[in-house]
Amino acid sequence: MTRREFVSGVLLSGGLSPLLSHTGVEAAQAQSASASGVRILLFDTFGTVVDWRSSVIAEGQRLARAKNITHVDWAAFADAWRGGYGPSMSRVRKGELPWTKLDRLHRMVLDELVVKFKLDALSEADKADFNLVWHRLDPWPDAVEGLTRLKSRFILAPLSNGNVSLLTEMAKRAKLPWDVILSTELVRHYKPDRETYLMAADFFDLQPSALMMVAAHAGDLDAAKALGLKTAFVHRPHEFGPAKPAPKAPPGKYDYYADDFKQLAGQLGV
Amino acid sequence: MTRREFVSGVLLSGGLSPLLSHTGVEAAQAQSASASGVRILLFDTFGTVVDWRSSVIAEGQRLARAKNITHVDWAAFADAWRGGYGPSMSRVRKGELPWTKLDRLHRMVLDELVVKFKLDALSEADKADFNLVWHRLDPWPDAVEGLTRLKSRFILAPLSNGNVSLLTEMAKRAKLPWDVILSTELVRHYKPDRETYLMAADFFDLQPSALMMVAAHAGDLDAAKALGLKTAFVHRPHEFGPAKPAPKAPPGKYDYYADDFKQLAGQLGV
Repeated sequence: MTRREFVSGVLLSGGLSPLLSHTGVEAAQAQSASASGVRILLFDTFGTVVDWRSSVIAEGQRLARAKNITHVDWAAFADAWRGGYGPSMSRVRKGELPWTKLDRLHRMVLDELVVKFKLDALSEADKADFNLVWHRLDPWPDAVEGLTRLKSRFILAPLSNGNVSLLTEMAKRAKLPWDVILSTELVRHYKPDRETYLMAADFFDLQPSALMMVAAHAGDLDAAKALGLKTAFVHRPHEFGPAKPAPKAPPGKYDYYADDFKQLAGQLGV
Repeated sequence: MTRREFVSGVLLSGGLSPLLSHTGVEAAQAQSASASGVRILLFDTFGTVVDWRSSVIAEGQRLARAKNITHVDWAAFADAWRGGYGPSMSRVRKGELPWTKLDRLHRMVLDELVVKFKLDALSEADKADFNLVWHRLDPWPDAVEGLTRLKSRFILAPLSNGNVSLLTEMAKRAKLPWDVILSTELVRHYKPDRETYLMAADFFDLQPSALMMVAAHAGDLDAAKALGLKTAFVHRPHEFGPAKPAPKAPPGKYDYYADDFKQLAGQLGV
């Protein structure tokens, strides 16, 4: 046990309230056992930290007003843009495309949507700027406060398919208090490739069990768990809009379940 | 000109005081011209941001008290440890060693110094912990305030041979407000290899002239300047201790000259 792990363990024990019910104490102790060796929290970003859908819709609507475009359903547009994300990354993961950063994949999908949604009113400058909406996504309301609390005990990093500049500019604008930007661009693999989840273990000379993946998506957590990382599911019911509420994850599968980052901070004793 | 560059230019012009003397205005305008396209400031770290020598001496002295070691001159020890840095990196740069992160190079040098300085009282755990003193270096007194001011206008990153975990833990402890950690470990090359200086241009899709290298060492700035980066020399006379005051850089060679980060912030209009 390193000195830092020892200190973390002491801090966590001290964080348990003596007023918890017996059951509450047992649950908290079980959870503290899961977290006691964790040094780094890795956050999925799109959907888990930031509300990509509302942000893309809002920028689309602003652009439409500026360009006098009235025929576009920007919610459908946002969903279609996000819908192109997985397939475009799969082409890179399968080797059909060489390594291509997410900004360029977003632009490839945008160029298709400009045709499909008849957006020929947009200039090249408009499209180049709109493509960077993914650098300007707004965080969920609890994100900055929750992360700030968690930062007092853990090293915090995004672990996102967003490229380095995307994650850096997003954090600067939204005041996300990351300690280090871990983009999958650094290893030139997209999630769920194993290289992405193990990057922090390599950089920080840690076992995977000292890392915890925090995500709103079961697939991301399953891939992390299979490699030995701890896992925390954070439920983001509104990620896909009011018509498609995201389900909760099945219980018993992950180390932590929380409704937002503030609740996760409480569960982790900070 | 991007929207961001335009905004930066306006902000900079607004930062010029109308009370400056004519000569002052001209100097400030010349400097604003140099900085107007700059979006990212890249900081050499050891010696430029943090005072490695005093920090290593202080930890050595604490360790000596704990272990009842009385025969070591810790200033000489610190200088010897730092003295092994360049030669060990050169072995990696020349291909005599495969890529090896700085923590391991520091440990290789430490193991030699343990023999040379007769430190057999140190256990393996002592040595492993002492090796991480490079993650715990104290910043120069102006660093956090100066960086915080500069962060309001620029993206800030270390560009250091320190590995990712070293720079991350240093920043967390010392509250250095980086936007992104750019370690040369990310490109597996040590400065002054060109890959290190051009990393940010690649990540952020920028020309080298949109980057400014900030360093207390002429060699670092010369290598950056040769690749088209802007340069700022910050004088750190005490880096090598009272007996070896570091000289100022020759005038006219770099874009900016400052005595500390607060003065640099003033020159850059923030």
